Amino acid sequence: MTFTRNKAVAYAQDNQKRFLDDLIALSSIPSVSTDPQAKAEMMRAAEWLATRFSSIGLEHVQVLATALHPVVYADYLHTPGAPVVLVYGHYDVQPAEPLELWMSPAFEPTIRGEHIFARGITDMKGQVLVTLHAVESILQGGDLPVNIKFLIEGEEEIGSPSLDEFMLANKELLACDVALNPDSGMQAPDLPTIVYGLRGLAYFELRVYGPDHDLHSGVFGGSVLNPAQALAELIAGMHHANGSIALPGFYDDVLALSAEERAELGRLPVYDDWYLQATGAPALWGEQGYTSTERVGARPTLEINGLLSGFTGTGSKTVLPAWAMAKISCRLVPNQDPEKVHQALRQYLQKNTPAAVRWELDKMASGPAAMSDRNSKYIQALGRAFESVWGKKPIFKREGGSVPVVVQFKRILGVESVNTGFSMPDDNAHSPNEKLHLPTWRKGTEAIIHFLYNVGEA
Amino acid sequence: MTFTRNKAVAYAQDNQKRFLDDLIALSSIPSVSTDPQAKAEMMRAAEWLATRFSSIGLEHVQVLATALHPVVYADYLHTPGAPVVLVYGHYDVQPAEPLELWMSPAFEPTIRGEHIFARGITDMKGQVLVTLHAVESILQGGDLPVNIKFLIEGEEEIGSPSLDEFMLANKELLACDVALNPDSGMQAPDLPTIVYGLRGLAYFELRVYGPDHDLHSGVFGGSVLNPAQALAELIAGMHHANGSIALPGFYDDVLALSAEERAELGRLPVYDDWYLQATGAPALWGEQGYTSTERVGARPTLEINGLLSGFTGTGSKTVLPAWAMAKISCRLVPNQDPEKVHQALRQYLQKNTPAAVRWELDKMASGPAAMSDRNSKYIQALGRAFESVWGKKPIFKREGGSVPVVVQFKRILGVESVNTGFSMPDDNAHSPNEKLHLPTWRKGTEAIIHFLYNVGEA
Repeated sequence: MTFTRNKAVAYAQDNQKRFLDDLIALSSIPSVSTDPQAKAEMMRAAEWLATRFSSIGLEHVQVLATALHPVVYADYLHTPGAPVVLVYGHYDVQPAEPLELWMSPAFEPTIRGEHIFARGITDMKGQVLVTLHAVESILQGGDLPVNIKFLIEGEEEIGSPSLDEFMLANKELLACDVALNPDSGMQAPDLPTIVYGLRGLAYFELRVYGPDHDLHSGVFGGSVLNPAQALAELIAGMHHANGSIALPGFYDDVLALSAEERAELGRLPVYDDWYLQATGAPALWGEQGYTSTERVGARPTLEINGLLSGFTGTGSKTVLPAWAMAKISCRLVPNQDPEKVHQALRQYLQKNTPAAVRWELDKMASGPAAMSDRNSKYIQALGRAFESVWGKKPIFKREGGSVPVVVQFKRILGVESVNTGFSMPDDNAHSPNEKLHLPTWRKGTEAIIHFLYNVGEA
Repeated sequence: MTFTRNKAVAYAQDNQKRFLDDLIALSSIPSVSTDPQAKAEMMRAAEWLATRFSSIGLEHVQVLATALHPVVYADYLHTPGAPVVLVYGHYDVQPAEPLELWMSPAFEPTIRGEHIFARGITDMKGQVLVTLHAVESILQGGDLPVNIKFLIEGEEEIGSPSLDEFMLANKELLACDVALNPDSGMQAPDLPTIVYGLRGLAYFELRVYGPDHDLHSGVFGGSVLNPAQALAELIAGMHHANGSIALPGFYDDVLALSAEERAELGRLPVYDDWYLQATGAPALWGEQGYTSTERVGARPTLEINGLLSGFTGTGSKTVLPAWAMAKISCRLVPNQDPEKVHQALRQYLQKNTPAAVRWELDKMASGPAAMSDRNSKYIQALGRAFESVWGKKPIFKREGGSVPVVVQFKRILGVESVNTGFSMPDDNAHSPNEKLHLPTWRKGTEAIIHFLYNVGEA
């Protein structure tokens, strides 16, 4: 087995140039799932992956329609008795706006130094390709040590609205022993990371309506409640002065951090200096009584993701706007139920909105938090793979981002997910100048090769 | 004189069709002063007016350059011993956005029932044409009973940044005995109105900066202060729960309403029902202890005119935005100084902004409130003109809107302004579907004819 493993690693190293071409080709496709104009580009990305899966010898390659964007499926099931590993990924990306802040065009992948820049390159086209290239490298050297299935969806960045129905309708096709989800990341290039806790998400759009049309602020100002003011007052009331969240019952189900877990998170080499440098904020801020690492990894938040009302162009317009809108989302920790958070927000709005305006709340993407068993044989297999490539034990981490699919895999397929990935916290996922660290990306392919052999040997 | 006055009124009535063509032609020009792309359209509107002034026999017609948009000047000075009346107006208009809310295109004037719809048609191209048509009608029947000058600027909707310098440089050209400013309006078609008090304006853009780039709300949410949240909290603190404004010292210079004035404003036929119907708001709201008429006419306000931050498109994007912006403006009442209000806002921000964000404040359009002597011979002349056309005495009113030029005329030229106009409170000035009530507009021309004769005879 060792001979084949080494042959596979050598193949990966010999084919770096071609793998990079793949990365550039896939990241050049503007597969923005939230954009109704991008349907053709979405299909182009799906078909690019399907073609590539076929070319490395995978079977049952299909582009399967859903209510919105298609799912790409492929498998290779020729190792009886070995576990079935389901690789999850997504080929859709966030919108690239604001375009003027990109140093090179968002969909023209550009190498500067050790990094390559493009929208979606770290989140997560590069990560999908790591798994594809690992499987390709092994198949060139012989048979796979495990059975493998790929499920690459196109709606992750909009909350995977079709995935639940797709998985329910294809439970047999997707049956597996474990899921490998490379959509989380590393702490730094020299710190391979395994994420065992992920925050959940509950995303909302709140609209506050006042007058039934925009008014002249001179002719009517003073007689009606300005909906932008009302929205600001509602938002201001959502946090206490100590940084905690003021929605009724918001913390009722939050699993408190144990002293042991706090001690372990305290060993993570992430300090306030790092957060200050990575965010560029004038100062840090957060819930009192917790470190930054705890605030991000293990405590829930309520963020304003967007605000819009009235006149926002250059100059002045004395309008008293008819409405104001906020995008609001909560990151959730284990045991919080997104629907309960939704109801808590409704209660808060019912109780606190003045009668002089009315409100509407839409619930959008949502999913609970997830925690994995750190002692499972799959997570141990990944830990040993990281040791082989980096020469050191990985860090175990609870992460701030949400991977709702981890919860779906558990609920629908009954399997745990191994959450890893080769992106960095400063890769600008969801921001202008998204990038991928190429040396780490290459190590990632080797690590996944080792992981698959380790799982086969376990 | 009566014979000539009647001939002039008859001329105006006989030329209604042609006057309407003027209204349509001028209102078809998208002269949006705040739009840097609209420079050519601004010049087209100015030249249209200059051509028309020449065609009715005015002299010294000039399109005079300023630092931004030109001023149109014209005069007719052939009545020695009679007062010089300076007609003020503006040919620029507010932006038409949001375009999708217009029932007919904003710059294709469209008649529906008794109204004609177009951006800028009531504010104030229609009002400028009332004065032009009145002068044309008199000149056809003989000489003018007064001397007249026209000053029509192109920057009113952006706070008249060039007007001060223009007036200072042209004090002799603009020398006059009184200004006629038809940029305010009537309460209803059967209620001719003379405005003796106008609120001032202080307009600001506030920007709050947090992280130095947009962040992923999962990876960083909880560790930094969200600038949209910080902005909302700052805005929320700008009002007390009783609806009054919380900036330090904001009311220090406010002239309190006398019992006599409150009694008189109470006689205005404007009740809460009217405000509810005209605004379409779910309920009225305002400073406790004042009626709606007082809140709008005689009390200062602080309004949010615009909000922008983060992701505002369709769907969800889990961004933690780098900045948030609000357009904020105060309507001011007599004795309030816009610069003092500016400093009060700065003090408030200095005291209340957390160290985890930083702020920038731009002062934009501004001007103090204005009050006129209701017993001047010019205001009396206008009152009699309204009686001639409507058969009833006009209402005297304090109005919510701002006409900073009234203050400039007093300061630079040393003259009072007669503030009137033929727009209605529900004309949607500054809003989609701006309109003008055509029967009232026609009466307006007749009223200005009578006004000019009354001034000449006084």
